[in-house]
Amino acid sequence: MTKGLFITLEGGEGVGKSTQLALLERALQARGLDILVTREPGGSPVAEDLRNLLLFGQHSFSRRSEILTHFAARFDHVDQVIEPALAAGKLVVCDRFTDSTLAYQAYGRAEGEVGTLSLINNLQKQLGRQPDMTFLLEVSRDTARRRLAARGKPTDRYEKSDEDFHIRVAEGFRTIAEQNKNRVIVLSTEHMPAEKVNAVIVEHILSRLP
Amino acid sequence: MTKGLFITLEGGEGVGKSTQLALLERALQARGLDILVTREPGGSPVAEDLRNLLLFGQHSFSRRSEILTHFAARFDHVDQVIEPALAAGKLVVCDRFTDSTLAYQAYGRAEGEVGTLSLINNLQKQLGRQPDMTFLLEVSRDTARRRLAARGKPTDRYEKSDEDFHIRVAEGFRTIAEQNKNRVIVLSTEHMPAEKVNAVIVEHILSRLP
Repeated sequence: MTKGLFITLEGGEGVGKSTQLALLERALQARGLDILVTREPGGSPVAEDLRNLLLFGQHSFSRRSEILTHFAARFDHVDQVIEPALAAGKLVVCDRFTDSTLAYQAYGRAEGEVGTLSLINNLQKQLGRQPDMTFLLEVSRDTARRRLAARGKPTDRYEKSDEDFHIRVAEGFRTIAEQNKNRVIVLSTEHMPAEKVNAVIVEHILSRLP
Repeated sequence: MTKGLFITLEGGEGVGKSTQLALLERALQARGLDILVTREPGGSPVAEDLRNLLLFGQHSFSRRSEILTHFAARFDHVDQVIEPALAAGKLVVCDRFTDSTLAYQAYGRAEGEVGTLSLINNLQKQLGRQPDMTFLLEVSRDTARRRLAARGKPTDRYEKSDEDFHIRVAEGFRTIAEQNKNRVIVLSTEHMPAEKVNAVIVEHILSRLP
């Protein structure tokens, strides 16, 4: 009976997360691994309802309530989807997790305010489940902006935020990586072809499998 | 500059909360007091959206996620409605608050399980705001059942729960009252006319005003 492995992909808008997620899913499936690919906010029916309110809702959340709602979605996702998959020995790959809440809400919105960091860290402690391995993708702001503009689709609440916000988010991710060197692997996707980035990620994951 | 007063009404289904809330609002207004009457789950636009998912949503929450979502609504309600009203010196009267989450989720759903009690107490600690005074209304189960049947309207997720659940909720409220004697005033509305109950509540409140 193998124990599952919980892997997260993190990074700001336009760093290439969706591309890497698709490549990773294909590469792991090609190796016959039993995987579950999921995403946050969302990933379970209740969490998708909450995602809808968070990203596209009519009303403005208080800063603390926005954090609580992200965690309400995350608790449901962990309890109803991630834990059962890990218990069944699956390799779970999740697009965003608590690091995103720290980067966006604490570093981006609250500019690193201590109370906000401590609220998120406290909720993560209550949650219990941590990723075994996190890949943080990075690009320069210029590249990220160019990629976002090329998407051309309607943008959600976070994509609409201003440039300073996105810079704080990127710096926040970098701080998180430095504080969690055992868990977080930083990959610059700026000058590396997507297939090369994928190969590095796959290699790291395979090294952790029995 | 007067400081506001935060008052909550608590109790299971059919104890007479709505009647007392209406009588209380009228009585306090008649005395020219600056009041705000509100309710949970809900009380702010975001919290009303979350209330909708909690009470009438299509999907089933994990136990922990249900608690987190109640608190997400509560944080928004406190941050955007209750705190500003108290800061303006208002008397805030709220239909249900954290005691209901303890009674329904921890004592009702989780049958007093330690982890659930501790999650709720931890979230309440993060929230910070506690009621200054809580009125817990009680009736016998027979009376509660009769009153609910008389309403005849479509029932929400909690009203649909079974009899044992409602007994655990009532016992949970009683435990909370015993553990918070400084704050919680228990009123049996079984053999007392509604106007008499109202007079007792008003008297308690007036005794706390400057």
